[in-house]
Amino acid sequence: MQTVSFIGDVREVVENARAAGRRIGFVPTMGALHAGHAALIRQAHEEGCFVIVSVFVNPAQFNDAGDLAAYPRTLTADEAVCREAGADLVFAPEVSEIYPAGFATQVTVDSPLTKAWEGHFRPGHFAGVTTVVAKLLLIAQCDRAFFGEKDWQQLAVVRQMVRDLAMGVAIVGSPTVRESDGLAMSSRNVRLSPEARKTAKIIPYLLDTAQDLLDSATPETQTDKGGVIAAWLRTLLESNAPDARLDYLAVVDPDTLVEVDEITNYAQVIIAVHIGGVRLIDNRKIVKRF
Amino acid sequence: MQTVSFIGDVREVVENARAAGRRIGFVPTMGALHAGHAALIRQAHEEGCFVIVSVFVNPAQFNDAGDLAAYPRTLTADEAVCREAGADLVFAPEVSEIYPAGFATQVTVDSPLTKAWEGHFRPGHFAGVTTVVAKLLLIAQCDRAFFGEKDWQQLAVVRQMVRDLAMGVAIVGSPTVRESDGLAMSSRNVRLSPEARKTAKIIPYLLDTAQDLLDSATPETQTDKGGVIAAWLRTLLESNAPDARLDYLAVVDPDTLVEVDEITNYAQVIIAVHIGGVRLIDNRKIVKRF
Repeated sequence: MQTVSFIGDVREVVENARAAGRRIGFVPTMGALHAGHAALIRQAHEEGCFVIVSVFVNPAQFNDAGDLAAYPRTLTADEAVCREAGADLVFAPEVSEIYPAGFATQVTVDSPLTKAWEGHFRPGHFAGVTTVVAKLLLIAQCDRAFFGEKDWQQLAVVRQMVRDLAMGVAIVGSPTVRESDGLAMSSRNVRLSPEARKTAKIIPYLLDTAQDLLDSATPETQTDKGGVIAAWLRTLLESNAPDARLDYLAVVDPDTLVEVDEITNYAQVIIAVHIGGVRLIDNRKIVKRF
Repeated sequence: MQTVSFIGDVREVVENARAAGRRIGFVPTMGALHAGHAALIRQAHEEGCFVIVSVFVNPAQFNDAGDLAAYPRTLTADEAVCREAGADLVFAPEVSEIYPAGFATQVTVDSPLTKAWEGHFRPGHFAGVTTVVAKLLLIAQCDRAFFGEKDWQQLAVVRQMVRDLAMGVAIVGSPTVRESDGLAMSSRNVRLSPEARKTAKIIPYLLDTAQDLLDSATPETQTDKGGVIAAWLRTLLESNAPDARLDYLAVVDPDTLVEVDEITNYAQVIIAVHIGGVRLIDNRKIVKRF
């Protein structure tokens, strides 16, 4: 495994891998790699791909300068995770390599999908994501790109971009990897105080409760309705974590992210909440059982 | 040579051409092919490329519905031009293949380059161009793409997009092919009345005069200044073609398209003018000789 910083070096490695008949698998990351990233890399490796991991903290997708400054940067540790998980190439560019002087191109998905939820609370976030992901996919020239399902809306947005532009890349979503108490792995978790870390387990608890509510729905409780489930969960959050600041908690269609009322088959519960000053997001599918 | 309408068919043909060790050359067009297009196809062929020509009248780049409706569509004749010039594949998709239901992605270059001149007079034009060109380049998976220099600003915008996104495609600009009287070949020329067609030769005359003015500059005439040259040419146009409606006529930097005053080395003269109800554009390089 080697690490390179320049686009031209990636192209050369990719060309050689292709000439050797390899399929290219790509895992875009912002570094601070954890077990969730490692699972993506391992999956790409086990599928037989030549695996490229990008490590790039993308300024364009941060709407909050403090969040950008606080975002952990741990390249040496990241390289160890990559090597261990079976990566073949790490691409760790400087900001000036991705955004050289005069850079002016934007790739945007202009639909309700990017305006809701994360799009609403983090203005400009998705334009930053789609622009950098498009560029990274073009640099990696990959056949398959792997994304964690923790960023559910991001995954939907990337899928739409790739489909709309006929990029010819298969977008693979992989299940969220969780801590033993259920908290979704995130590079931001290290910023939680011990107390906030304890509080944070309310998030997976709420998501699991959504399934319980759906399972126990009766004509009286109406907990097979998205709005009713969301209201229950908000009340639960307020009583169990009064200091948490909720951005959103909703029951939505998994593809369009439009809120659903009557759940006839399945739905996605999505949440973004600030706990101890750290913004955390998570989601899970809930399924109506007959 | 074959013609296909579906993205998947292009991918299959490209894969086979690549497997056979061919480089892919791509000529994007809106059809109504003329000698200018044929020259691009021939150039790609003579460079040894497997040549893909797209024929797609892109609704997204027309700011004027009447212009879109009036744009000539001549696929059978276009196929003959392609075959004759050495194309290997024609890609002639329906609008719904490029813009399926729910399409929402835009590729935009947000810089002074896209705001001036054509960007000013045709709002939304360049966003339409960059989005479709990005998608077509991704479908063709080409090594080289060929564009006529008649659309000088478009060429500069496409170059910026390809550079910004690291698309890994070489953008080749080729000299404008002209009628015997100097009028630039354009698919819109067929819409000129015989009288307007005669008037239209004022355009290359103005461009050539720009070089004459520069050649004959003295400290008194100051015709080595962009603004002075442009003023002279505007007067010439008014006296020779009083019915022509000028959108712009300017002396600019060839790369940034910013107006230049003192011409120290070379510059580009650009013009857009309506003659007999048809909007024509052209440009030429002028060089200061010592």
